[in-house]
Amino acid sequence: MAGNTFGKLFTVTTFGESHGIAIGGIIDGCPPGLAISESDLQIDLDRRKPGTSRYTTARREEDEVQILSGVFEGRTTGTSIGLLIKNTDQRSNDYSKIKDTFRPGHADYTYQQKYGLRDYRGGGRSSARETAIRVAAGGVAKKYLKEQFGIEVLGYLSQLGPIKMENVDHSITNTNAFFCPDANKLEALDEYMRELKKSGDSIGAKVSVVATNMPVGLGEPIFDRLDAELAHAMMGINAVKGVEIGDGFAVVEQKGSEHRDLMSPQGFKSNRAGGILGGISSGQDLIVHMALKPTSSISVPGETVDINGQSAEVITKGRHDPCVGIRAVPIAEAMMALVIMDHLLRHRGQNADVIKTTPIIPGQA
Amino acid sequence: MAGNTFGKLFTVTTFGESHGIAIGGIIDGCPPGLAISESDLQIDLDRRKPGTSRYTTARREEDEVQILSGVFEGRTTGTSIGLLIKNTDQRSNDYSKIKDTFRPGHADYTYQQKYGLRDYRGGGRSSARETAIRVAAGGVAKKYLKEQFGIEVLGYLSQLGPIKMENVDHSITNTNAFFCPDANKLEALDEYMRELKKSGDSIGAKVSVVATNMPVGLGEPIFDRLDAELAHAMMGINAVKGVEIGDGFAVVEQKGSEHRDLMSPQGFKSNRAGGILGGISSGQDLIVHMALKPTSSISVPGETVDINGQSAEVITKGRHDPCVGIRAVPIAEAMMALVIMDHLLRHRGQNADVIKTTPIIPGQA
Amino acid sequence: MAGNTFGKLFTVTTFGESHGIAIGGIIDGCPPGLAISESDLQIDLDRRKPGTSRYTTARREEDEVQILSGVFEGRTTGTSIGLLIKNTDQRSNDYSKIKDTFRPGHADYTYQQKYGLRDYRGGGRSSARETAIRVAAGGVAKKYLKEQFGIEVLGYLSQLGPIKMENVDHSITNTNAFFCPDANKLEALDEYMRELKKSGDSIGAKVSVVATNMPVGLGEPIFDRLDAELAHAMMGINAVKGVEIGDGFAVVEQKGSEHRDLMSPQGFKSNRAGGILGGISSGQDLIVHMALKPTSSISVPGETVDINGQSAEVITKGRHDPCVGIRAVPIAEAMMALVIMDHLLRHRGQNADVIKTTPIIPGQA
Amino acid sequence: MAGNTFGKLFTVTTFGESHGIAIGGIIDGCPPGLAISESDLQIDLDRRKPGTSRYTTARREEDEVQILSGVFEGRTTGTSIGLLIKNTDQRSNDYSKIKDTFRPGHADYTYQQKYGLRDYRGGGRSSARETAIRVAAGGVAKKYLKEQFGIEVLGYLSQLGPIKMENVDHSITNTNAFFCPDANKLEALDEYMRELKKSGDSIGAKVSVVATNMPVGLGEPIFDRLDAELAHAMMGINAVKGVEIGDGFAVVEQKGSEHRDLMSPQGFKSNRAGGILGGISSGQDLIVHMALKPTSSISVPGETVDINGQSAEVITKGRHDPCVGIRAVPIAEAMMALVIMDHLLRHRGQNADVIKTTPIIPGQA
Repeated sequence: MAGNTFGKLFTVTTFGESHGIAIGGIIDGCPPGLAISESDLQIDLDRRKPGTSRYTTARREEDEVQILSGVFEGRTTGTSIGLLIKNTDQRSNDYSKIKDTFRPGHADYTYQQKYGLRDYRGGGRSSARETAIRVAAGGVAKKYLKEQFGIEVLGYLSQLGPIKMENVDHSITNTNAFFCPDANKLEALDEYMRELKKSGDSIGAKVSVVATNMPVGLGEPIFDRLDAELAHAMMGINAVKGVEIGDGFAVVEQKGSEHRDLMSPQGFKSNRAGGILGGISSGQDLIVHMALKPTSSISVPGETVDINGQSAEVITKGRHDPCVGIRAVPIAEAMMALVIMDHLLRHRGQNADVIKTTPIIPGQA
Repeated sequence: MAGNTFGKLFTVTTFGESHGIAIGGIIDGCPPGLAISESDLQIDLDRRKPGTSRYTTARREEDEVQILSGVFEGRTTGTSIGLLIKNTDQRSNDYSKIKDTFRPGHADYTYQQKYGLRDYRGGGRSSARETAIRVAAGGVAKKYLKEQFGIEVLGYLSQLGPIKMENVDHSITNTNAFFCPDANKLEALDEYMRELKKSGDSIGAKVSVVATNMPVGLGEPIFDRLDAELAHAMMGINAVKGVEIGDGFAVVEQKGSEHRDLMSPQGFKSNRAGGILGGISSGQDLIVHMALKPTSSISVPGETVDINGQSAEVITKGRHDPCVGIRAVPIAEAMMALVIMDHLLRHRGQNADVIKTTPIIPGQA
Repeated sequence: MAGNTFGKLFTVTTFGESHGIAIGGIIDGCPPGLAISESDLQIDLDRRKPGTSRYTTARREEDEVQILSGVFEGRTTGTSIGLLIKNTDQRSNDYSKIKDTFRPGHADYTYQQKYGLRDYRGGGRSSARETAIRVAAGGVAKKYLKEQFGIEVLGYLSQLGPIKMENVDHSITNTNAFFCPDANKLEALDEYMRELKKSGDSIGAKVSVVATNMPVGLGEPIFDRLDAELAHAMMGINAVKGVEIGDGFAVVEQKGSEHRDLMSPQGFKSNRAGGILGGISSGQDLIVHMALKPTSSISVPGETVDINGQSAEVITKGRHDPCVGIRAVPIAEAMMALVIMDHLLRHRGQNADVIKTTPIIPGQA
Repeated sequence: MAGNTFGKLFTVTTFGESHGIAIGGIIDGCPPGLAISESDLQIDLDRRKPGTSRYTTARREEDEVQILSGVFEGRTTGTSIGLLIKNTDQRSNDYSKIKDTFRPGHADYTYQQKYGLRDYRGGGRSSARETAIRVAAGGVAKKYLKEQFGIEVLGYLSQLGPIKMENVDHSITNTNAFFCPDANKLEALDEYMRELKKSGDSIGAKVSVVATNMPVGLGEPIFDRLDAELAHAMMGINAVKGVEIGDGFAVVEQKGSEHRDLMSPQGFKSNRAGGILGGISSGQDLIVHMALKPTSSISVPGETVDINGQSAEVITKGRHDPCVGIRAVPIAEAMMALVIMDHLLRHRGQNADVIKTTPIIPGQA
């Protein structure tokens, strides 16, 4: 498979450039009978949408998704679902200067080398614009998981530059423009971002996603372990440079007696593993963290080269997020939902004969 | 695809349990004409092999690989390559006690739930024993990459518990049982491990892998980015809980002006990105780090449940590595080689018409 | 993968129902740099289009394809290509009667059983309407194959009911509404179809496709042989019930001394094999034939059951082709082009090191 | 995927050459809990085995299959199943003459061109020897389908050269060396083959396979239709040049009123479609026919070229079947079982929520 398809049984294939006519995608393998409409998908699209606060790009896109097929009389039919979002605010002329120059930290150079030419308008295919379709597709998965299994996928901003969230209250997350789950940090975030904007610079972030009410048994050893596929999904989000499952890099300094999650008839006694053992979900909450680099589109001048390898300087004007990590929250949720969905279908395809609805022990003690 | 295959064009499919008759695998898609023999693969198998030092499991396996097909008169023929390693030191009776009890931190519970039954001997399929085949298959990829492109894949132990390596001298790595690249840390490691063994506990580790002489252009956006596939590959190694590309989690606190790698006619001026931009290799060194949890097989007693959900206690006797991270070094190298190889084939399949041998700028300034 | 994707490296994924808003698709893996525009694709779409003659359905669709992405300044960029065709002439009310009744010979019953519900309007996803996207995608492949390799893919009607074409003159094929390559049979076809329309019945057909200027070496043994993939592609076209490569079923009565194609320094001395040996292209013309059943949508009443399993009778009014085989010609060409294209990319991915531009002997003596 | 894997959820990957050390394969995705042993697989291996009658090659292979993994205490564990068959009767020297000459009708030429070198011993990978592993893997699928669903897959020889079987009595098929289901034709077959052997020539054949007790709903539109995948599977068997579903090429001359299978509350009233509508199984018997060419390994001299493109003559001595169609019967059964199995898993993965055990009407009236 070329690289624009995600998943094996529940697949999402996408197309579209930042400044093309439209972006779109196809969901294949969706179970039939699911009640779904554009408005279900619009919720997360609006969360991801640019232009919603002064901390994200000023580009305005309605990001109105159209379902073109696969849904009949309000229900999925089991056939492929076509999704389309028209690009409305394109302003290609903003980008004409960078036609022959490679912006440092961007994919301009690597696309040019790989393909011999590139759509230089706004990063073309490498722009995070395409993630809108992932969010729409993830919305279908989310709805199915919620309705059939009670599974919820909840993302949040866990760190922005030096500011670490200390309390996670999911009821706070969607009440602020930062997807911050810690009410005590809102003011600090606001101030930090205001200063940052003034400086014309950008900052990295850490995003976390949790799935609750997970069934036991999802994940296909050896290579398609649930953790491996989550890592694949998350590292495939623009700007992500690190992925952790459960305790992540903290395990380097942990002892075995400290790390392993003990079990009791009432359930697991801790969740350092992040809900996965041997690549298979344990019924505990799935926990994933990821690191997102600061956007490279800043107004601080930077040394680079042009298409002929000659020295050049670049200042990215355009309209860009000073912290791309913020808007990554709904994207990360969507990707986790897609992974769970795909593995659910794969698991019941192979193991339908032995799947038990009640596990030996509950997920959490 | 079920989960035992890795790759798209250059694929590796594996089978085998810890205490079965044999483990094995099939490489498919290997370019023809490569000179290869069992002895080429044995080098890394011996590096991974248990029983080579007092810091790894005392289980002794010759791990002698046989090439059963796909090689004729010393050269690959382009057809599938069958690999086989017989299990010689099985001692199944060591494990009879854990038949009905789930070892905490292990995959016993999740395999039982997923499949309704499990091969409980030494962890069965979930044992790291199967990684021997990955190492053998990776050896084929390594040889091709080295001979055709000069690419080298070099792994090392970058941290063990509290001990962080400070200097990386690849000429040191393979001269000691820790794959430690820092000669100054060998004594500390030795002492730490001696104490650890006494305590019956285990410890986590961090492993790093670097690929040098990388071509520009490998990686298939959007979902099969090179970094996403590396994350998939590394998180799929037993015990890995975190993966970083380049600066990894450090980017959370970096500013854009600090993170982006500037470019000059002489090459990139830094490599915080770890050799990947927009999911495509930039020609710089590929840099990946991973966190490995401490093995859960320790002689410290632990609370658990049995197959009926009743309370139980478990002490893992057996023969186990107090730090599984050490032996993961050749495994991580193999996985990186497999990813590069697969992407090389995919890249030239699609882009053969435009591939240029000399990039616009060199990988490193 | 769910079932709406074709190919491995050069893939086409489609969506859309007969009476939905639009049909569409995504081409992934297209080599960059190919000059392509909507008008290139429109040629074959117009050949497939309904309503072009009195022998095909009276439904009128403009079938105007839009390229939404993947092409920049007139050239493919190597990224995924979004295709969209709006449905303009839907008339859903034509089909309201068959909502609860299964038309014999159609997929109504099997879709209902498989998915528990179905889009009953005009056959929904099972309608041949979706093949328009295959034709559009095939147009991209055709152009690449022609420009880079001189490969041409030529289909024609080889039999319609009792009328067998005797001469194949490719210059005749596209000058008549039957895709008939034999000028001497045009009158007989015309008369036969006129009589058939009067009777309200339909008729089967045989379609053939040939690819010329084939390179040697395409096809991936064991399971992805070129002939196996062609059979997959052709049998996946609506109404196809049989596929032959080269001499096809005639080989049952052939002797070995008669069947094998002898070779001379000037090339192969015959082409009974249809251009494939051991699943790999030999450089000779690829030759495929297929049998298409008569459409089941006829005005002759037929016994059937309703959604509750009760006896019912059905007469298909609607607007239907009395011989679906005719319009299958451009579809079969498209599918052959997609197979060749995918295998070309796979072949050069694995075997780039050894591909020779001049084969040992020419394709044809 | 490179070409040595078949299937998506239930996959089989194979390796091995005619005269290598061993052939083998890996089954991935097998449901857990299936009772299976080597002796279950040996039944069909013995049916396929060379040297069982005077009408097949005199090469003697025990074809004793070993299960190396994936089965524990007599049951499948859900993990990958390793299969191995050692080559015992290799006699490489028989083949030394053809090292530099291409046998007409064989894959010698195309392998040499594709890969730049080839294992010339007995056809190497292109030899039908590898089908033994398909038969072993098919045996696992057959057992599961039989035990869980009552599905039986029954193949037979339906024509050999000019001799057409008229009655199909499955109880006769396995009582004779021809897999002939018509007791009245045994004498004619015997005489025909005796004459053929004398002449040193070979003959084509037609093989048919039927699956009974099929569930409704298997097959994934659009591209992975059940018929398309069966065509893929069957055309991928060595020497197959044509595949038909149900009435196959006879549909070319059928009218719609004659072809469509009418339905009644008691079931379908005929089965011209061969058990598939719209690419999805209808619950009727699956019916597939295939044409196999005469083997090209005959003692009649034939004109060819050598590796330098110079004129040469070849006589194949060796030990070869005068009719390869005969031994294809168990191979075709195996491939059908693999296709059904894969589609069963895919179907229940996606559609588990709506699968009904009792269809609206029975498969057969």
